[in-house]
Amino acid sequence: MTAGLRLPPDNRGDAPLFDPRLFPVDLGPYAERVEHLSRQLAASAVERDRDGGSAPRERELLRASGLLTLAVPSAHGGQGAPWPLIYRIVRQLAAVDSSLAHLFAFQHLQVATLQLFGNPAQQRHWLGRTVQERWFWGNATNGRDRRLHLNRRDEHYELNGCKSFCSGALGADALIVSAPRGHSSDDRVFLVLPTQREGLAINDDWDGFGQRQTDSGSVQFENVFVHSEELLGPSGASPRSTLRACLSQLVLVQLYLGNAQGALEAALRYTREQARPRAGAEVLSASDDPYAQQRFGDLWLRYRSALPLAEEAAQRLQAAWDRPALTAAERGEVALAIAEAKVVSARAALEITAQIFDNLGASATSARHGLDRFWRNVRVHSLHDPLDYKSRDIGRWLLNNQLPTPSIYS
Amino acid sequence: MTAGLRLPPDNRGDAPLFDPRLFPVDLGPYAERVEHLSRQLAASAVERDRDGGSAPRERELLRASGLLTLAVPSAHGGQGAPWPLIYRIVRQLAAVDSSLAHLFAFQHLQVATLQLFGNPAQQRHWLGRTVQERWFWGNATNGRDRRLHLNRRDEHYELNGCKSFCSGALGADALIVSAPRGHSSDDRVFLVLPTQREGLAINDDWDGFGQRQTDSGSVQFENVFVHSEELLGPSGASPRSTLRACLSQLVLVQLYLGNAQGALEAALRYTREQARPRAGAEVLSASDDPYAQQRFGDLWLRYRSALPLAEEAAQRLQAAWDRPALTAAERGEVALAIAEAKVVSARAALEITAQIFDNLGASATSARHGLDRFWRNVRVHSLHDPLDYKSRDIGRWLLNNQLPTPSIYS
Amino acid sequence: MTAGLRLPPDNRGDAPLFDPRLFPVDLGPYAERVEHLSRQLAASAVERDRDGGSAPRERELLRASGLLTLAVPSAHGGQGAPWPLIYRIVRQLAAVDSSLAHLFAFQHLQVATLQLFGNPAQQRHWLGRTVQERWFWGNATNGRDRRLHLNRRDEHYELNGCKSFCSGALGADALIVSAPRGHSSDDRVFLVLPTQREGLAINDDWDGFGQRQTDSGSVQFENVFVHSEELLGPSGASPRSTLRACLSQLVLVQLYLGNAQGALEAALRYTREQARPRAGAEVLSASDDPYAQQRFGDLWLRYRSALPLAEEAAQRLQAAWDRPALTAAERGEVALAIAEAKVVSARAALEITAQIFDNLGASATSARHGLDRFWRNVRVHSLHDPLDYKSRDIGRWLLNNQLPTPSIYS
Amino acid sequence: MTAGLRLPPDNRGDAPLFDPRLFPVDLGPYAERVEHLSRQLAASAVERDRDGGSAPRERELLRASGLLTLAVPSAHGGQGAPWPLIYRIVRQLAAVDSSLAHLFAFQHLQVATLQLFGNPAQQRHWLGRTVQERWFWGNATNGRDRRLHLNRRDEHYELNGCKSFCSGALGADALIVSAPRGHSSDDRVFLVLPTQREGLAINDDWDGFGQRQTDSGSVQFENVFVHSEELLGPSGASPRSTLRACLSQLVLVQLYLGNAQGALEAALRYTREQARPRAGAEVLSASDDPYAQQRFGDLWLRYRSALPLAEEAAQRLQAAWDRPALTAAERGEVALAIAEAKVVSARAALEITAQIFDNLGASATSARHGLDRFWRNVRVHSLHDPLDYKSRDIGRWLLNNQLPTPSIYS
Repeated sequence: MTAGLRLPPDNRGDAPLFDPRLFPVDLGPYAERVEHLSRQLAASAVERDRDGGSAPRERELLRASGLLTLAVPSAHGGQGAPWPLIYRIVRQLAAVDSSLAHLFAFQHLQVATLQLFGNPAQQRHWLGRTVQERWFWGNATNGRDRRLHLNRRDEHYELNGCKSFCSGALGADALIVSAPRGHSSDDRVFLVLPTQREGLAINDDWDGFGQRQTDSGSVQFENVFVHSEELLGPSGASPRSTLRACLSQLVLVQLYLGNAQGALEAALRYTREQARPRAGAEVLSASDDPYAQQRFGDLWLRYRSALPLAEEAAQRLQAAWDRPALTAAERGEVALAIAEAKVVSARAALEITAQIFDNLGASATSARHGLDRFWRNVRVHSLHDPLDYKSRDIGRWLLNNQLPTPSIYS
Repeated sequence: MTAGLRLPPDNRGDAPLFDPRLFPVDLGPYAERVEHLSRQLAASAVERDRDGGSAPRERELLRASGLLTLAVPSAHGGQGAPWPLIYRIVRQLAAVDSSLAHLFAFQHLQVATLQLFGNPAQQRHWLGRTVQERWFWGNATNGRDRRLHLNRRDEHYELNGCKSFCSGALGADALIVSAPRGHSSDDRVFLVLPTQREGLAINDDWDGFGQRQTDSGSVQFENVFVHSEELLGPSGASPRSTLRACLSQLVLVQLYLGNAQGALEAALRYTREQARPRAGAEVLSASDDPYAQQRFGDLWLRYRSALPLAEEAAQRLQAAWDRPALTAAERGEVALAIAEAKVVSARAALEITAQIFDNLGASATSARHGLDRFWRNVRVHSLHDPLDYKSRDIGRWLLNNQLPTPSIYS
Repeated sequence: MTAGLRLPPDNRGDAPLFDPRLFPVDLGPYAERVEHLSRQLAASAVERDRDGGSAPRERELLRASGLLTLAVPSAHGGQGAPWPLIYRIVRQLAAVDSSLAHLFAFQHLQVATLQLFGNPAQQRHWLGRTVQERWFWGNATNGRDRRLHLNRRDEHYELNGCKSFCSGALGADALIVSAPRGHSSDDRVFLVLPTQREGLAINDDWDGFGQRQTDSGSVQFENVFVHSEELLGPSGASPRSTLRACLSQLVLVQLYLGNAQGALEAALRYTREQARPRAGAEVLSASDDPYAQQRFGDLWLRYRSALPLAEEAAQRLQAAWDRPALTAAERGEVALAIAEAKVVSARAALEITAQIFDNLGASATSARHGLDRFWRNVRVHSLHDPLDYKSRDIGRWLLNNQLPTPSIYS
Repeated sequence: MTAGLRLPPDNRGDAPLFDPRLFPVDLGPYAERVEHLSRQLAASAVERDRDGGSAPRERELLRASGLLTLAVPSAHGGQGAPWPLIYRIVRQLAAVDSSLAHLFAFQHLQVATLQLFGNPAQQRHWLGRTVQERWFWGNATNGRDRRLHLNRRDEHYELNGCKSFCSGALGADALIVSAPRGHSSDDRVFLVLPTQREGLAINDDWDGFGQRQTDSGSVQFENVFVHSEELLGPSGASPRSTLRACLSQLVLVQLYLGNAQGALEAALRYTREQARPRAGAEVLSASDDPYAQQRFGDLWLRYRSALPLAEEAAQRLQAAWDRPALTAAERGEVALAIAEAKVVSARAALEITAQIFDNLGASATSARHGLDRFWRNVRVHSLHDPLDYKSRDIGRWLLNNQLPTPSIYS
């Protein structure tokens, strides 16, 4: 039996998973499909968080939703959805299942990588196959891990070494892989690799205490053959292509806010439906506790402060995406807006997911409610790259008018 | 001699007072006039903060700007500017002189009171005179002070007693006065009173440690004659008329954010132009200090988190203002949005205005820079009504779906 | 295989588990035994946290240490150790294994209950058996759970109903049980019950996400026979006997601080030995990162601020314990000192255990390090009774000179 | 007329200025004298803060108290009081008048300088005159200001240049002056200079927005003659002599905590005696407001967390002071304990002095109460040297076992 605070769909009747009064969201034509998918994921989210490991059944639900091609341009058979809308869908899924939302979001990141770095023929080929063969993409692009080497062999290339933190690789149809071009971790080439390729070993070794079903384990490469046309490009990094880091960073923001939303919703519901008045309280109902009201108000304001920055950053990113070329300054301003959204939303989510418990009491810590998963997800995911350095980058801009240097994280 | 961090206009050349890179703001057709007025106020703001008391010369600058009729509908000869734009102008002025910005904002609040509570003839009469005679309005409406009594005398009324915190009363041409209708502090009648009326004594006794030139002293009424047509209405409080409290609360938000903007701008400029590297720092320039960069980044994020909530609340208020009638629920949602903006912006401004100093060092505390005035202004103004109860109201809505009861503060 | 950050003892050579430079502690004659016990617990702490459930082997280690009789007066064959020393040992154990430290501390709480509520014959009898038969005590005293009833039957009594949160009950030799005397949750009788008594069912159903091996499940009572001499007393609650709540609250403080100590130690060690410089850092070693240094400094100060309050509270408690009788005021001042220590140490521990990760990076979130257990332990345990109401109690004292009313939590 | 929240002594009857229930302090044989002096300072503290400038009358009260020789060893005719006691007296005075407390504390710092750097004859001479002629010492030792030069002229020396932040110089009988020995700001010589010496100009130009009567202006030196025996020493800096920086830093701690104490006391009294229930509160008395109780509780805990660290640091300093020689490591541990106390107390004091207002409401911001002076004092004084670098120093010790390098601030 599936336990957990979130009641199975049939018990909830027709009420939406998230009260639209508190969490209004415009998902355009995808609203119904996202609600359906969310309910499917919610039904087992607590249980699967406890179990960890891969979630092949839920990956198939994502595939079956038809939403894996959201970012593929309509010219190639996809929906060509704008990024702000895609991000909102990621956020909504993250509110129930932050691991699957991660895989979902990274699918679109790899699709974007094809568009940013692939030549027209490559885009046509790989995006076409993505649609026709309903591919789920994974990645092996962790730029901090320098153990993977790409070497030229006559007409082809060969990969040897390994990569860690390869979210979504396990169970994927194809991977976006990056390998250093030269000595800087930021100068690298992206390539496409079907997961059936010989010499490729995708390990089931991810054991983070949060984001437990993101299949973010390691991948090993032993004399892996790479066709030269699988190398995306030719394309040196341009301001526009470095939007890849921006796209990636803004995924993180949605996962933070999604978990914050999920935590707030679950805690408010718990307080209304299950919590007893706290010891010492002079009220008859937990919902009337003056300190609980104040704390929920304050936590809510953390969430509300972050949301508009996330939306604004997505709009700016879309505007940059829509241009055929970008100046370094235009690109830098997008990065800055995303840095702002990232720091504010990560901190908000950390506080919200940790502090909801103060209002709920000890009974809410039963593992069957799974209420700690929100904090564990945010805590793990907010370490992707350090927030301190994002604040520093913003300060450098304020003081010295210096925009963030494009890198794998900014 | 006028000292202070802010250089007199001629020394600053043509550069705008606030770097549009950091503080972009759309003031529409009023941009130039507001910039001009800001420079005039800035020239003596530090000095006048030190002196306190009334600022008749600067009040005349406000009058001369032609902006006192911004909120008067064009049908009555005013500019009929939308509230979001008016609020932005208030914020911009508050960034240089929070006291005068307060007086400026309260002018529009009294004009709005005439529109919300006056009958058509009263609106025509008083708004017309506001434009033609270039009136500056003050108020005696502090609803917490219950010492003023209105009594019916045959054909007229009589006021006796006093009111405290009468911002803008000193030096005003006319006052909006409120007096209790019954026993609740929230049920009251508004009336118009020219300041020349016999029996009225407007005291120069405001001595707050911040907002020092807001003329927020006391007013005494001794057998003051009130014509019956000076009582606005008849109009019992309706959801729409209680927007007055919303308009007032959203003024506070602009003053908080204006001071935050002023403090950030001054501190960044000081760091770039005057600060030495801090003791212990291993850098050559104060602007390269890693902790200063981080702290400025974090303070900036407090400001950036609050700004969109303020703008959103102003848009919602305008939408409500534009309707001929409102339901209690529609009105409550506006109040809630304003409560959100208020708590977030007050806390952001308190932190920013206090913490800029950590980056500046001891020399920045010289009174001639006047950098503490931002904190003093926000500290005084953020006590208007308690933030704790705003958070509680938000929590009550989250938990119990209970909207804030219209009152003099919500 | 046992994984985890903490290396098995033999790999660590003779170095103490906790650097005495950072964590000096005077454990008097028990130093060596506590160090030995700590190493035994540390060897499997991460693994056992993952598994949850009961830890019979480690309970036996506690028993074998000879420290279960620390609180038993020497007249009855125990060590008669002072409370400040006992608390320090609890803290030290909690730094490696907060669950077993909890069981260990609650042993002493039950021993104290016998002393506070038992008549001389009962003390002699039960404390004697505690020593001679090496008893491990559990409890069924959750005062918030009102489902257990004690009824008089001729010469004996009978218990029916159940209790939740019965820490240490599973695997115990005897329980301290409380049942309501009258209608108030604070007026209750304590009684002694050997766990072999018929009709008693101790469930293995604790599933909190922290403090996972505290055996804090439920106990069911079906027509359980209670000899009249098993009821402790006669003793109505006196100021001195209500020290039981004080003793219990000060246990919580040690668990918070122990987890904070464990988290700091582990994070510092990880940074020195395993962490790479963070992305964006301009340093060669993680230990030289300016932000990591600053953050560790700040987290350390949270710990250092709490520690003296905990020590001071323990000294005050001991002084009260040493008196044959207490006035209500004297008792209230002890409660107040403990409330101070509790709020400060709980908040410090919550922040420390959550924020260490900011310095460590994503690799530190691998479940094999088990670094999240510190936060989970503190988060669960800090909900025992709400901190907000402790702050309120302190405020009431400050404002109204009102001391906390003795209750099950204060 | 003297205004202010603090009532003049005769109105307060025999009640001590600070409730010993909340602020117990052991001042040994000086208790009565300190209470008397505190009352004298309190009578005009608010007024003098408003006026700024020098306070010759109150300086004479300090002199008349006989407490200026507290730090002079009894062998030289002083009281030879231990540092922890002196610091407590400083703190107590700072709670009513932080400026005069500063001057008082710096008197003892200059006396200590004579002991740390003077040879036996110099100590005998200058300490003897300090006692006999009842000298008030000032300083011109700001090590960050490198504009003062000492040059050898045949048998004597000559000073030229200037020094800023010369607290206590104006109105002093003699100054301790420092001038660079070589190129490092930390290698410097101390010398004694009677303020009547020709060529010395002590300016009345201190205009900080806090600590307004500390006479911390600039001193100018034009061909000032210095006898060679006025140079203290010979003494290169030794670990023991660098205790001077420790002594100085620990003065800051007392001023922070004194202001925190003063602010808490004034705010509690105001709430009990003058405050009305806040708008929105459902209570009859301000003291019963649940949020005010909670906030006062929390602010109190900030104060209570800092106090033991200050006391502990003073004990450690005294232990080091009592040794004839110190190792660098022993000295470093004292510096570290003081750094801990400093950061915690500065932050506590900043929060307390800013946040008391949230509980008091707008009426408390009247300048006649002078309640903002506590924040202004702490804000100015906490910039003496940056807290960020103190946290960093603590982090360096934690991570790299590196003790703070002796400097003018650590």
